[in-house]
Amino acid sequence: ERLQRLRQRPVTIWFIGLPRSGKSSIAKALERALFDIGLQVHVLHGESLRNGLNSDLGFSGADRWENQRRAAEVARLSNEIGLICIVSTVSPLKADREQAKRIVGGERFLTVYCNAPLSVCEDRDTVGLYKKARAGEIRNVTGIDAPFEPPGNAEILLDTDQSTISDCVQTILRELRARELIKVEG
Amino acid sequence: ERLQRLRQRPVTIWFIGLPRSGKSSIAKALERALFDIGLQVHVLHGESLRNGLNSDLGFSGADRWENQRRAAEVARLSNEIGLICIVSTVSPLKADREQAKRIVGGERFLTVYCNAPLSVCEDRDTVGLYKKARAGEIRNVTGIDAPFEPPGNAEILLDTDQSTISDCVQTILRELRARELIKVEG
Repeated sequence: ERLQRLRQRPVTIWFIGLPRSGKSSIAKALERALFDIGLQVHVLHGESLRNGLNSDLGFSGADRWENQRRAAEVARLSNEIGLICIVSTVSPLKADREQAKRIVGGERFLTVYCNAPLSVCEDRDTVGLYKKARAGEIRNVTGIDAPFEPPGNAEILLDTDQSTISDCVQTILRELRARELIKVEG
Repeated sequence: ERLQRLRQRPVTIWFIGLPRSGKSSIAKALERALFDIGLQVHVLHGESLRNGLNSDLGFSGADRWENQRRAAEVARLSNEIGLICIVSTVSPLKADREQAKRIVGGERFLTVYCNAPLSVCEDRDTVGLYKKARAGEIRNVTGIDAPFEPPGNAEILLDTDQSTISDCVQTILRELRARELIKVEG
């Protein structure tokens, strides 16, 4: 009944990418685009989660795993009430993504890889995350001293160093339409 | 913009009460009633959470606290996207409720106390929770060997041993209307 009312199919759109690869900006623009065509969306930004639900977690391997697990569980809850859920976290490891897919359910789990060279991400880094990591002031920064396993099988690949945010959003919308997850023209 | 579209004010309706005091049944009936008047609702059942988001937690004091904290954080996320959130957990301690209220935000946090004598809850217990606790087979059951602090200041008090589920739902709807949280006649 919920789905009939909402006229959308619930899906989790799971962003993957290095810090500053453009995940959050694209997620925000996608949220706006989906909202504007009348759909209902829930965006979970990794950084916001870390200030709330996951405020008890750090950046160790175990905590990162738990961070991803909880994001996936909340995405599942959102999907269960019919919402489209966009999750924007670094999601560095293959095992994280597999866990998330298992929790959410493979048939409604779509990965979007924001691919940009580390050097580009470092250039974009206005808050000094990478600089501090390079200087050894902070640890466990993905791409510097924490591993990042690029996904080989993401449903959607965005070269975020070469495409505009708007282009990236259009690519995702095209894919959602192709999979009949959204029906409206965007 | 979300709120304009949804035509409702986000609120968290936080149920409190012993196991089998009627929380989940009333929460379900309330969800249906709100859905039927066109509102959008997210229900978090304690037991479902324990199978998902909180599956890493047990029933120790610290784990119960964390269980409540996460439920409140998810309620906050739901409220942030404009949904009415119903949380149905035992919520045994005053400190739990205060934490939840702080996380969700006092101005949109409403407590509903499902008040029924322990003997009535025990009579209703078809799955043998209380029986096993009395027999010492399981531990940390609220009302038996884990504390329950009845809320003295719940916004809504339901005597669930004397009222029908339908009456209880009407009481809650009346209160939501009186507080102008919902506008439709129910």
